[in-house]
Amino acid sequence: MGTGRSRRHDGVVRTIDWQDGHIVAIDQTRLPAELVVLQIGTVEELIDAIKRLAIRGAPALGAAGALGVVLAGGDPTLAQRVKAARPTAVNLAWGVDRVLARPDAQLAEALSVLEEDVAANRALSQRGAEWLLDRVGRRVEVQTHCNAGALACVEWGTALGVVRALQERGALGHVYVDETRPLLQGSRLTTWELAQLGIPHTLVADGAGPSVIARGKVNAVVVGADRIAANGDVVNKIGTYPLALAAQRAGIPFVVAAPESTIDEATPSGADVPIEIRDDAELTHVAGTPVSPKETATLNYAFDVTPAELVTVIVTQDRALEPGVAASKEHQ
Amino acid sequence: MGTGRSRRHDGVVRTIDWQDGHIVAIDQTRLPAELVVLQIGTVEELIDAIKRLAIRGAPALGAAGALGVVLAGGDPTLAQRVKAARPTAVNLAWGVDRVLARPDAQLAEALSVLEEDVAANRALSQRGAEWLLDRVGRRVEVQTHCNAGALACVEWGTALGVVRALQERGALGHVYVDETRPLLQGSRLTTWELAQLGIPHTLVADGAGPSVIARGKVNAVVVGADRIAANGDVVNKIGTYPLALAAQRAGIPFVVAAPESTIDEATPSGADVPIEIRDDAELTHVAGTPVSPKETATLNYAFDVTPAELVTVIVTQDRALEPGVAASKEHQ
Repeated sequence: MGTGRSRRHDGVVRTIDWQDGHIVAIDQTRLPAELVVLQIGTVEELIDAIKRLAIRGAPALGAAGALGVVLAGGDPTLAQRVKAARPTAVNLAWGVDRVLARPDAQLAEALSVLEEDVAANRALSQRGAEWLLDRVGRRVEVQTHCNAGALACVEWGTALGVVRALQERGALGHVYVDETRPLLQGSRLTTWELAQLGIPHTLVADGAGPSVIARGKVNAVVVGADRIAANGDVVNKIGTYPLALAAQRAGIPFVVAAPESTIDEATPSGADVPIEIRDDAELTHVAGTPVSPKETATLNYAFDVTPAELVTVIVTQDRALEPGVAASKEHQ
Repeated sequence: MGTGRSRRHDGVVRTIDWQDGHIVAIDQTRLPAELVVLQIGTVEELIDAIKRLAIRGAPALGAAGALGVVLAGGDPTLAQRVKAARPTAVNLAWGVDRVLARPDAQLAEALSVLEEDVAANRALSQRGAEWLLDRVGRRVEVQTHCNAGALACVEWGTALGVVRALQERGALGHVYVDETRPLLQGSRLTTWELAQLGIPHTLVADGAGPSVIARGKVNAVVVGADRIAANGDVVNKIGTYPLALAAQRAGIPFVVAAPESTIDEATPSGADVPIEIRDDAELTHVAGTPVSPKETATLNYAFDVTPAELVTVIVTQDRALEPGVAASKEHQ
């Protein structure tokens, strides 16, 4: 796998793309220290990049799945291995399946997945911004978690896409970003994107996000999603659920921004989603040094489930769904 | 300030004590890698140790305040400086004031503060264990946050004291420990104490604590407190509030274990407690390396406020208070 330096990520460099028979992708493990672009020429390299989170984010994983089938030359066995690289985000499997279904035109189909992702993000971002302007008012102060920006997608972003759409309309206040332990996607990636965009932002510990909400510093929570179940339960990066609890108590909206491909009608509820459990070392070591005794076990959930009734709205390129309203009606 | 190695922390070594005209205290910034005991001979050294969290934990800060007046030779100006070293935990000021009020017998009074802390912790731990056995049943599975163990006190512990009392009664299941960013008191200190005690435990990211609760892995949350307001609002390490929200939703008790000296009748509510805001670098750097862009601001709250109505019970050496019951009665 080759690597190379790239220009500033100013909208020209896509997070993931296809060039000269290779996948090219920004190595997200190297940011914010340096912007390195990977050239991925084999399925093995792709699986490695996905497992170590060099490529991450549900929509970007959809693109990786689609392009992975092209790298696999359409071999269904290899394609299945790409699909299994991470279990939780439904987009990875969705991207693989979509291209496998078009054996006659795999590259064209994969490139369509990328173009559609860009278009979907633009559309859902406008819808999210409109929804927030309508419900919250002319100055939206946002709490977000993990990274659901351009780096999680082909370009533009989902949750941060909504933030950008608010900025374009002059309706954005401040953005509070959870650091997102253990891999610090908030500290490393979301802050980097916001700095590039000139958006004022503040980093907080994950445990502080609910206090930022309780203290009235924000009037909306906006996050992405890795999978949305048929009942509206939202699976997203570990640490999302506490923000939803705090938003409900504070009476502010909890907004999920995701493309339609994230909604998995085949999964009835959040309880049916396999939750990836990652390595002990992400918690027991910091920068290679042990921070806890060797006797200590870990439970390193990568994702959590926010029940539909805590979700105020899900904005996609096609619609604004309010599962909490539906859930509370069902309870009546 | 001198340092020395010590024997294993097996109950013989106190977290903080007085020896030959010095304060001796375990340096909590060095655990779990090594057990180093500080010898503190001046008020300057004491203030430094408190500010950098070498000495930490509300009850241990009470002892530090008491012994600090002795180091200050009773000088009220120096004593005020000790009191101001950290603003949130009420015990520090309480320890200073108690010894200042006894100019005739300062060392004896300070040593009484230490002995009373040990006795209070033993008593509140038994009360907490009894309360949990009564309400939860014969196998208590605990989620805790930060470190409210022997290392936060003179010895024995408050929240972990309750855990130890459950262990003595054969009623303890498993203990889940939040890592407690940014300073990792959970990863570094609580796991170390539990490992020393042979108690099975699992480390989780702070963002995962609410999911551990939602997934039914624990049947009680047990934490310490840095200050309890007159109305029952509990100020504790940042990241405590999300556990209280999750416990309420899951219908499991949220138990606060603290000595009476943590209850500050002079502070009407949590909103009146000054919340310490710590340095940017605790969030923007990991092991000395930047993890976010230089443009990124931080809001590094050291503590959060859990409203009284989310607190199931506060156990002290004297009583078991149920502020949530009182609060919900007031709302009727």
